[in-house]
Amino acid sequence: MILLGLDPGLGTTGWGLIAADGNRLTHLGNGQIKTDSAMPLATRLLALDLALTDLILEHRPDGAAVEEVFVNVNPQSTLKLGQARGVILLNAARSGMEVGEYAARLIKKSVVGVGNASKDQVHAMVSRLLPGVKIVGPDAADALAVAITHAHHLASARRIPTR
Amino acid sequence: MILLGLDPGLGTTGWGLIAADGNRLTHLGNGQIKTDSAMPLATRLLALDLALTDLILEHRPDGAAVEEVFVNVNPQSTLKLGQARGVILLNAARSGMEVGEYAARLIKKSVVGVGNASKDQVHAMVSRLLPGVKIVGPDAADALAVAITHAHHLASARRIPTR
Repeated sequence: MILLGLDPGLGTTGWGLIAADGNRLTHLGNGQIKTDSAMPLATRLLALDLALTDLILEHRPDGAAVEEVFVNVNPQSTLKLGQARGVILLNAARSGMEVGEYAARLIKKSVVGVGNASKDQVHAMVSRLLPGVKIVGPDAADALAVAITHAHHLASARRIPTR
Repeated sequence: MILLGLDPGLGTTGWGLIAADGNRLTHLGNGQIKTDSAMPLATRLLALDLALTDLILEHRPDGAAVEEVFVNVNPQSTLKLGQARGVILLNAARSGMEVGEYAARLIKKSVVGVGNASKDQVHAMVSRLLPGVKIVGPDAADALAVAITHAHHLASARRIPTR
């Protein structure tokens, strides 16, 4: 089963793909989709949508997951994140995938074992759980952590059915 | 020139279509796209996207416009609005339309003549500017006001080129 983890953002969206075969996890790929802040908002959303469509068409994941949103203290940042997140959820739903949503605490607990783990601990455990992985950046690391969490919790997670 | 005004919302998105021929405005249609709050978020965004695609395919507008966002005091509301707005901007951009964005004050000034006009005054003027219009609800009225503003300001507005 191929799972896609996503860490949404208007400027940078991290993605991580793993194959889950029972308890065995294999890294398939990770990356960061960046949009040009000099471009108009609609153009950036379109670029994000196209990059995500390419990714899904290439790897045909069976399921996807995102982190439940950290609502920023800055409402404009929350709005930007919301716009990117809307595009990402739509794209996954259009592809017929269910999209799991996990709280940050649950992701940390699932990957490291404790809900208050540091970012560094999460990234170290992602590297350990996916031997040989080369992580391209912090957003890709977060996306892989979401994918791993999705694999662990697939049976019990609150999922968003799309059909 | 056919112009589509949109008042984005996750629960209800208002839309209004007008034809602008120089200073002459004609009402073509208005409505409200509702999504079922009992459904998962991704499903609601997909329903919004599909309804909007149908609308655009049927009427083939030459341009679209949305109100610049009122950032809600409730971050969760801002996030919801952002997610719906992201889907709407993406949909318009995918259709190759430029999407104008107008501040609430500018819309009131453009429709009523004063930037601090009440909601009722705006709606009354929309009815006067589009004789014979039957407005289906408050979100549709706001959407028509955005479309009228877009018609008035098309030459000078800040537009979002999509290509």
